Amino acid sequence: MNILVIGGDGYLGWPQSMYLSRQGHRVGILDNLARRAWDSEGRTGSLIPIQALPERAALWKSLTGRVIETYVGDIQDYAFLAEIVRRFSPDSIVHFGEQRSAPYSMIDREHAVFTQTNNVIGTLNLLYATKEFCPQAHLVKLGTMGEYGTPNIDIEEGFIEITHNGRKDVLPYPKQPGSFYHLSKVHDSHNIMFACKTWGIRSTDLNQGIVYGVKTEETVLHDGLATRFDYDAVWGTVLNRYCVEAAIGKPLTVYGAGGQTRGFLDIRDTLRCIELAILKPPRPGEYRVFNQFTEQFSILDLANLVQRIGGHKGLDVTVDHLPDPRVESEQHYYLARHTKLLDMGLVPHNLSDVLLESLMDVVIRYRDRVIEETLLPQVNWRSTRNPSSYSTSGLPSGEPVEKELQAAHNGRGGA
Amino acid sequence: MNILVIGGDGYLGWPQSMYLSRQGHRVGILDNLARRAWDSEGRTGSLIPIQALPERAALWKSLTGRVIETYVGDIQDYAFLAEIVRRFSPDSIVHFGEQRSAPYSMIDREHAVFTQTNNVIGTLNLLYATKEFCPQAHLVKLGTMGEYGTPNIDIEEGFIEITHNGRKDVLPYPKQPGSFYHLSKVHDSHNIMFACKTWGIRSTDLNQGIVYGVKTEETVLHDGLATRFDYDAVWGTVLNRYCVEAAIGKPLTVYGAGGQTRGFLDIRDTLRCIELAILKPPRPGEYRVFNQFTEQFSILDLANLVQRIGGHKGLDVTVDHLPDPRVESEQHYYLARHTKLLDMGLVPHNLSDVLLESLMDVVIRYRDRVIEETLLPQVNWRSTRNPSSYSTSGLPSGEPVEKELQAAHNGRGGA
Repeated sequence: MNILVIGGDGYLGWPQSMYLSRQGHRVGILDNLARRAWDSEGRTGSLIPIQALPERAALWKSLTGRVIETYVGDIQDYAFLAEIVRRFSPDSIVHFGEQRSAPYSMIDREHAVFTQTNNVIGTLNLLYATKEFCPQAHLVKLGTMGEYGTPNIDIEEGFIEITHNGRKDVLPYPKQPGSFYHLSKVHDSHNIMFACKTWGIRSTDLNQGIVYGVKTEETVLHDGLATRFDYDAVWGTVLNRYCVEAAIGKPLTVYGAGGQTRGFLDIRDTLRCIELAILKPPRPGEYRVFNQFTEQFSILDLANLVQRIGGHKGLDVTVDHLPDPRVESEQHYYLARHTKLLDMGLVPHNLSDVLLESLMDVVIRYRDRVIEETLLPQVNWRSTRNPSSYSTSGLPSGEPVEKELQAAHNGRGGA
Repeated sequence: MNILVIGGDGYLGWPQSMYLSRQGHRVGILDNLARRAWDSEGRTGSLIPIQALPERAALWKSLTGRVIETYVGDIQDYAFLAEIVRRFSPDSIVHFGEQRSAPYSMIDREHAVFTQTNNVIGTLNLLYATKEFCPQAHLVKLGTMGEYGTPNIDIEEGFIEITHNGRKDVLPYPKQPGSFYHLSKVHDSHNIMFACKTWGIRSTDLNQGIVYGVKTEETVLHDGLATRFDYDAVWGTVLNRYCVEAAIGKPLTVYGAGGQTRGFLDIRDTLRCIELAILKPPRPGEYRVFNQFTEQFSILDLANLVQRIGGHKGLDVTVDHLPDPRVESEQHYYLARHTKLLDMGLVPHNLSDVLLESLMDVVIRYRDRVIEETLLPQVNWRSTRNPSSYSTSGLPSGEPVEKELQAAHNGRGGA
């Protein structure tokens, strides 16, 4: 099968590309290398050293004999995108190619506008290119569980049957996204659903949970095939940040009460889920949604877990509660359905002590590379001008975020 | 009250501005004059002659002694927008400033991208400008009933209480918009709801039906205060198009079976609804949604009505069913709630024979100005490159729309 992986140089795109290449598919990576540029902008970096795209692709070839084609460019440039799609002739397109950080989208107006334009227009271009040049291709789009927010009822997979005033319909599940990034994914979902209905193209929208782990059957083949590990407050996910904090002897930074509950999954399950979606495509015109995660945890559960595993490694781990820089419920009901991928054959890797110890070992190995000042939140949801290295507006910046957060914290009566 | 009307040079923006000015408010119009440019692009035009913005504002002043301030520029230009918002210091912002045609958004990729960028980023800029320079101001945003699509259950006003697996929540009403234009409004709604929650700003989202009529207490004061009347297949609404077709002896062009049912309202009710929203603003942080229409009609109902009223005027009116250029249900359940504005004091002007006869008189007066070739649909939802005067891509265009539509029509078994 010809599979085009958009964003194939990123944390998940790169292991996914190797995985699919190893299954014998023809794989092409289309990437604008934006993720690397954002590290320069924010003075952040992957804890694990990673190679440049041409090097890692060449290494993959020398180790396995398999070719991963690479195309460097931006899907907002339609002439470029159209040319690659036409030449590559994909059967499936896996779309990781978006700005994926909620805090990044909340820095200021410029970053919000960038995120929504980049993600929504990029995906819109992809829909047009699919319709025009490969209308049979299957678009596998990465969404996020964060599109749903935290409703007080069970979260279903994309659609919900509603009975109302004696009548019934199955309708798109109502969305309550919590950042301009999450909103961009909701906009995407609506655009894709419409394109499937109107043009008869086919798509799977994967509302993915938070992915952890860096070891896959392919990344472990050689240090030069490693994928990135982000731990800072803008790009890192909560479990990664905790591991780094534990490894360098800092308290774990729990935002607020810590009852925020989310779906999580192992990186190996991500690879397999996307493979399953590809192998069983929807019918023409079908738009289907899978919730792609395997377990639910609160962010306090995870802190307690890291504290315990840290103990096994001889680390003295403490837990700190910061005022929450986000606007979100710190205690809420959460039960999200995720059976469709299981029904298709997914066998989950649950978050075990063994996995977490292995992750901790990786972090300890590279702990000298940690940039400490990136660990604390610099982006406050309540401010429209966050005074960080990210500010690009040239306008006078606001109050230091710590002060604002503390004020918000105190305003809540010290909860 | 200081009221900034964005898009105040358009069909509704102009009468709204005069109406609010007459109530004694300080009114400023911010407009990029895009609607006039789109007429040049598509070789369309208002049936009723209209004056340029500086002339109509000067005329308003000379007739009433009241000033309507005018600011010409684009809300996508944040520096401009921020400067005007800061200087004008609005208590309310009425936002009509979007690309408002579904067919225009479906012409080709360029027009879809333009529509979503223009509308979504323009509104995002407005949210930031509000938060930064007038956080107490009330944003009155024009949405559309088309955001809801045609679900098989009753349509509520913005939110719906859902009971599911024994639990309950009030959630945003699920949306199924039917064009890239309608999608842009759904994206706006999500962005605004989030900004209210996160920043504590206040907004009323008016999901408006299809507005008819051109006479208000202010437009009738002088021919030079007239507002535009669009009847072509891209900018015109269905009732206007029927009136023009009847007046020039062409069959009324019903799209498909004609069971498509929508909400409608008189232009005078629009003006009053927006005034009601302004006079009773939501509390800080509140995002509220009103469905702004007064009656439901199917497009076939309206054709029959125009046929009857045309008869009174001595016109021999016939009805033609064209293959539907849109992808939509031609027969469906439709019941939409619209009580909130009635509860606030709206007294509707229903669509009477008298109103329709008066509208027909206006059309007959100007029938020599009709550009006939703009009446038939040139934009087919199923095609991504519509071969009209609108095509700007420079790429080879597709099949003539008539052929494609006929093929789609035949494909349905001649329904």
